[in-house]
Amino acid sequence: MKCIFGIDLGGTQIKIGKFIDGKLVLKYAIDTDVSDNGKNIINDICVTIEKNLNSDTLIGIGIDVPGPVKDGWVLGAQNIGWKSVNVKGEISNRFPNVLVEVLNDANAALYGEYYCGGAKGYKNVVMMTLGTGLGGGIIIDGKVYEGANGSSGEIGHICIDKNGRDCTCGLKGCVEQYTSAVGILRTADEMRKSCGKETMLNKENLTCKDVFDFAKLGDEVALEVIEDVTDKLAIGAAAVCNTLNPDLMLVGGGVSKAGEFLLERLEKKFKKYAFYSVRDTKFALAKLGNDAGIFGSFYSVWCKVDESSNL
Amino acid sequence: MKCIFGIDLGGTQIKIGKFIDGKLVLKYAIDTDVSDNGKNIINDICVTIEKNLNSDTLIGIGIDVPGPVKDGWVLGAQNIGWKSVNVKGEISNRFPNVLVEVLNDANAALYGEYYCGGAKGYKNVVMMTLGTGLGGGIIIDGKVYEGANGSSGEIGHICIDKNGRDCTCGLKGCVEQYTSAVGILRTADEMRKSCGKETMLNKENLTCKDVFDFAKLGDEVALEVIEDVTDKLAIGAAAVCNTLNPDLMLVGGGVSKAGEFLLERLEKKFKKYAFYSVRDTKFALAKLGNDAGIFGSFYSVWCKVDESSNL
Repeated sequence: MKCIFGIDLGGTQIKIGKFIDGKLVLKYAIDTDVSDNGKNIINDICVTIEKNLNSDTLIGIGIDVPGPVKDGWVLGAQNIGWKSVNVKGEISNRFPNVLVEVLNDANAALYGEYYCGGAKGYKNVVMMTLGTGLGGGIIIDGKVYEGANGSSGEIGHICIDKNGRDCTCGLKGCVEQYTSAVGILRTADEMRKSCGKETMLNKENLTCKDVFDFAKLGDEVALEVIEDVTDKLAIGAAAVCNTLNPDLMLVGGGVSKAGEFLLERLEKKFKKYAFYSVRDTKFALAKLGNDAGIFGSFYSVWCKVDESSNL
Repeated sequence: MKCIFGIDLGGTQIKIGKFIDGKLVLKYAIDTDVSDNGKNIINDICVTIEKNLNSDTLIGIGIDVPGPVKDGWVLGAQNIGWKSVNVKGEISNRFPNVLVEVLNDANAALYGEYYCGGAKGYKNVVMMTLGTGLGGGIIIDGKVYEGANGSSGEIGHICIDKNGRDCTCGLKGCVEQYTSAVGILRTADEMRKSCGKETMLNKENLTCKDVFDFAKLGDEVALEVIEDVTDKLAIGAAAVCNTLNPDLMLVGGGVSKAGEFLLERLEKKFKKYAFYSVRDTKFALAKLGNDAGIFGSFYSVWCKVDESSNL
């Protein structure tokens, strides 16, 4: 049967999915060999594909990488030791007559969620990825929108307080300084010290997950932290929705594991800051977790194959 | 020759442009007859077209209206007394076999600037219209992007200070409360009273144009007002650009008549608040003024005729 491979190239692991007729039929992971500036990586991927092709006919390979991409070239990916690499060219040499697509990992995750995750069925989507930082991605009319120079979706750097916390980017009061995992822990630390109350936040080696867990258990100070975090995230989300009026705001990343507890509070605060005509914007949680990349890489090929009706 | 009419239906005047081969060849204006809930308006327009058709062949009519539009219907336009009106249907009945397009006036102005004004040659554009309020419009990949329910571009309601001025929309600290003509006058009034200095801003019946004119003449307090206005507008513009990374930020509306004096200060402040990867976003002034609507209405037809290669 005709098959497509979706590959998520990460700093420690390469996830590889084999898709037949739009469905994931097999999933592998191999370690990322970052020795010699990652020069074995593409060969490792190609060998894995060949080994798992069996009697199926390969029609496409989609691959996402942790760095900026332009016309099939990766312009640099520090994590894996790459400078400028012609990923599309190298894979196409190995598999001629096969459609090859290369995309950025954040955009792949967004496409994955769009294809079969939390954003399925929505045409215009903004994804907020709450992890170490606050990243973003945008789908307009079913396609990833990259902007003038690939910098769309830098929503973590929307200013919510011009006299606020210093950001690593050099600006002040960026929303990610309050709403990323790092920002949440900082707020927790500040509130723990200043509250003058007993709080579970005094735990040693406090994690961002702890803050949410303690809030869920009813710890007052932890709840105040979450109030503050969702309030500030809502101001940023409102700025985005007042601009783009998307069909859906998708919330992903490690912090989003707090689930409905986070989402409910965020939506409530959002209504406080959003212009009336976008106040009912739908919010949803990302669903695919670490598999979003292979689904999205697959989809970047699938939607082209689909267009040309080869399948 | 084949011709297209571009019509800008306003509350007091209807501007009508006749275009041949993409160029405006004739321009008329008639008064808007708002009597009887504007029921004569469409006939007035059709008669004017017929009268000015001469020996040319009519292939398309584009018309913009001051209200929301869906599938050729105007859903309501208070200014001209309209409730729900099937503009496309009525015009098509009068001119069968002619392509008719109906669009909102703000989107028409943006299309006009895109076709032959300040945004010509840019694929992804955000227009900020500084008038009584602060409106916005978005072009993505050469097409007006309307959002989930036609509410994209409500950039005037981005919150820049959650404890700031009350907005007519019910929110607080909306950027338009500081950067629209009304907002600028309010800031001027506050600064005039509190500055404890001689200032030309003490003039009776001060206008927004006065504030810019006095700043250009070097009035210290007026200059402080402009500093404050551009600072706040820059925070809003940075939020938009961090999200959308457009090729161009186009500045239009009455306030933009302050020209390069405004633009230079805005760009300088913008660099202070924008994320580094969008810091070099280009800013430009709208060029077409009151003619933007007829050009945009024309263009909404022209780009479809062009696609189908009828011309």
